[in-house]
Amino acid sequence: MEMGSANHEKAGLFARGWWWLKMLPEKFKDKVTEIASNTKKLGQDDPRRVIHSLKVGLALTLVSLFYYYQPLYNNFGVSAMWAVMTVVVVFEFTVGATLGKGVNRGLATLLAGALGVGAHHLASLSGQIGEPILLGFFVFLQATTSTFIRFFPKIKARYDYGLLIFILTFALVSVSGYRDDEILELAHKRLSTILIGGSACVVLSILVCPVWAGADLHSLIALNIEKLGNFLEGFGSEYFNKSEDDQEAKDDKAFLQGYKSVLNSKAAEESLANFARWEPGHGRFQFRHPWIQYLKVGTLTRQCAYRIEALHSRLNSDTQVLPEVREKIQETCTKMSTECGKALKDLATAIRTMTKPSSADSHVANSTAAAKSLRTLLKSGIWEDADLLQVIPAVTVASLLLDVVNCTEKIAESVHELASLAHFETVSSPIVPEEKPQQPNTASDCPHVVVTLTEMPSVLAENKNMTSESAMRGRYIEVM
Amino acid sequence: MEMGSANHEKAGLFARGWWWLKMLPEKFKDKVTEIASNTKKLGQDDPRRVIHSLKVGLALTLVSLFYYYQPLYNNFGVSAMWAVMTVVVVFEFTVGATLGKGVNRGLATLLAGALGVGAHHLASLSGQIGEPILLGFFVFLQATTSTFIRFFPKIKARYDYGLLIFILTFALVSVSGYRDDEILELAHKRLSTILIGGSACVVLSILVCPVWAGADLHSLIALNIEKLGNFLEGFGSEYFNKSEDDQEAKDDKAFLQGYKSVLNSKAAEESLANFARWEPGHGRFQFRHPWIQYLKVGTLTRQCAYRIEALHSRLNSDTQVLPEVREKIQETCTKMSTECGKALKDLATAIRTMTKPSSADSHVANSTAAAKSLRTLLKSGIWEDADLLQVIPAVTVASLLLDVVNCTEKIAESVHELASLAHFETVSSPIVPEEKPQQPNTASDCPHVVVTLTEMPSVLAENKNMTSESAMRGRYIEVM
Repeated sequence: MEMGSANHEKAGLFARGWWWLKMLPEKFKDKVTEIASNTKKLGQDDPRRVIHSLKVGLALTLVSLFYYYQPLYNNFGVSAMWAVMTVVVVFEFTVGATLGKGVNRGLATLLAGALGVGAHHLASLSGQIGEPILLGFFVFLQATTSTFIRFFPKIKARYDYGLLIFILTFALVSVSGYRDDEILELAHKRLSTILIGGSACVVLSILVCPVWAGADLHSLIALNIEKLGNFLEGFGSEYFNKSEDDQEAKDDKAFLQGYKSVLNSKAAEESLANFARWEPGHGRFQFRHPWIQYLKVGTLTRQCAYRIEALHSRLNSDTQVLPEVREKIQETCTKMSTECGKALKDLATAIRTMTKPSSADSHVANSTAAAKSLRTLLKSGIWEDADLLQVIPAVTVASLLLDVVNCTEKIAESVHELASLAHFETVSSPIVPEEKPQQPNTASDCPHVVVTLTEMPSVLAENKNMTSESAMRGRYIEVM
Repeated sequence: MEMGSANHEKAGLFARGWWWLKMLPEKFKDKVTEIASNTKKLGQDDPRRVIHSLKVGLALTLVSLFYYYQPLYNNFGVSAMWAVMTVVVVFEFTVGATLGKGVNRGLATLLAGALGVGAHHLASLSGQIGEPILLGFFVFLQATTSTFIRFFPKIKARYDYGLLIFILTFALVSVSGYRDDEILELAHKRLSTILIGGSACVVLSILVCPVWAGADLHSLIALNIEKLGNFLEGFGSEYFNKSEDDQEAKDDKAFLQGYKSVLNSKAAEESLANFARWEPGHGRFQFRHPWIQYLKVGTLTRQCAYRIEALHSRLNSDTQVLPEVREKIQETCTKMSTECGKALKDLATAIRTMTKPSSADSHVANSTAAAKSLRTLLKSGIWEDADLLQVIPAVTVASLLLDVVNCTEKIAESVHELASLAHFETVSSPIVPEEKPQQPNTASDCPHVVVTLTEMPSVLAENKNMTSESAMRGRYIEVM
């Protein structure tokens, strides 16, 4: 019996092995197809990735040929390799990151080079035995101190790469076995090659299809606010009508999931803001554009997203809202949600078009009014006859929506602050054509109208997908 | 009149200037004191930072002297500088990050070096005019492809640095003006110096006070769960008794704020998990420890934190809960919250001590039972005479707490899964001395007892503050 089963197992193993072998080419083909489609998607999601790759290729080829050609080579010697290195390491996806690294690298090399020459000279005065001891001490002291300084959060955010290059250059220069005059020549060559490589990167990244971290941050913040707006615009009808049109609801799910990426956008926003501070004025952004205010708006947006996460979990709870409970607060709640959604979408449009967010104010006012009337409604004791357990889900949603109205007000306030800090333009006739501040009561009847999407400038619309990607990329690339 | 005011202004300006000058030394002193205290705090928060800095200093000094000494220098020539570079760039805070970068750097250099030699040889066959064209083409193709590959999220997470070094080495080797045999010698020297530098880093980072990314992830996850537990344990009495002991409440605020860091811990957790996968088995962790499961636990913890954020906003809302409303659900709600808190803290302890989280089960059961009795209570229509608006805050809190109970169950489930995947030990007698699973009803009477803090192993307790710091650090440091 056991033998038989062992044989059987063996045969099964062989069969499986044979089957696996037979499937190998097919699996390989599948894998290749998968990779190809992934690659295509990656490029289509953000064509700037392809352009960036080509830019890096171009810069590196130019600098490599500079390294290759003998006349230049004789002039710079091995130092020319620093130009190649600089290009590979400094060329980043956004202009801000490239500039930041370039400046860090240049200044750190200059400073550490000077200090290194000094240390080398000082050590050489102390005799044959003292020299290595003193040099070792200098290197140890400098590396330990600089490494510790890199732990300071503020310094890490902006000068981490500079400190790394500082450690490196100091060590290389101070311990090099050259004579003082040789070192100076070497330092000069290295600095000029780094300058050549760095400028190639900066010039290419600014002149050929530049990717501005500031513009990315700008549209990321607007996009995040819009995502919350999309959710809230649809939430009311989604929640209160969910028993009726389950099918339709499922088709629409995308706008209900959009907010989720907002929950974890903090790191991306912060790194973009850090890069943006390195960037010169460009397009509609001045040099000292208030990037910090974007982070404040982002924080408030995230706080609103946490409330929405709580709301979203209500959508999936099994507890069915009873019709008699529902219809009593449906209109007011839907209105609160829709008006908040519209306000947020108007705020997003205002940020995108860099205009004063005056059109959002009426929606904020509408939502506050709806919140007030909800409170009055609840005070009137509408459900005295209903079972409290049945009422709870609806009341919770109402209460969370009251929170959301609160958050929306705060976001609106911070966007107003941003508008005044960044000198957004005032528009006399708002661009939003469906704007009906005079008839706020009709607004709640059409929660599914997508009002603002078409007004988004197409350039920014194109940028939507890759903002957080470029930020993530920035976070991962550093050094030497 | 105008003159007078101008004079006055001028005098004021001078006075202010003088005052500013007089204050300068004091300001400078203040600044120095501030920096000194910041530095001290940074070191005290995580003494491992100081040790890491000393380790880097030591490694760099060793390798620098190796570079300095003439006999060795003659052997390796300028290539010895690659050892210095490698140390500066590869030495990271955690063992995993150091190993990952070392392996990436070594393999990428080997592979790109071989390909570069091939490209160089191929180009040299095509005559004087063809050579630079072909070389430029190779470099362009390689740099463009590799840069694009770096955009793939999975590759970026683990091999970003390797690809960068690949681009760099290929360009340097293929365009170098040397003859083929010279190149081979150069490549050999460079590879060995990189190996020397890399091994120095790896050996030092593993042997001298190692900082394991895996252990950090482990304690970060436990700490985050514990923070939520602390909040929930205190929340009940904080919310329902807030009118009575406002003063005491303010003293305790720290445990109510702790959860906030959990909201944004995703990036830190992911980067630690990435580093941990490079690490060999160490201490209580095997080589293939289920790090991915930690991320799952972390995600569920964060989802619970979002609910807690909604609960927290209830604490600060102006709406006062009426005593008659409060006292009806106070006991059940407090019990739900406290039991969830205890369950979470037991789960955290179970993770820390790597034991099966059996003691948490009774608390989870208690909280589920309390949730059930809350539902029954609400069904009984306790507030039929109360004003609904007055009831809303309490009902919302109750409903959010029901959500939290749900989340806690999920977290418990995922920790159980982790325990079985990572083969946590079964304890016959739970370590928790205050554990009273037989008398669950008494538990809700003492929500402020801090049960588990003292049981945390002191080594891990020491690690608490810097886990996310070390993760952030990892995210910022890269390349060449």
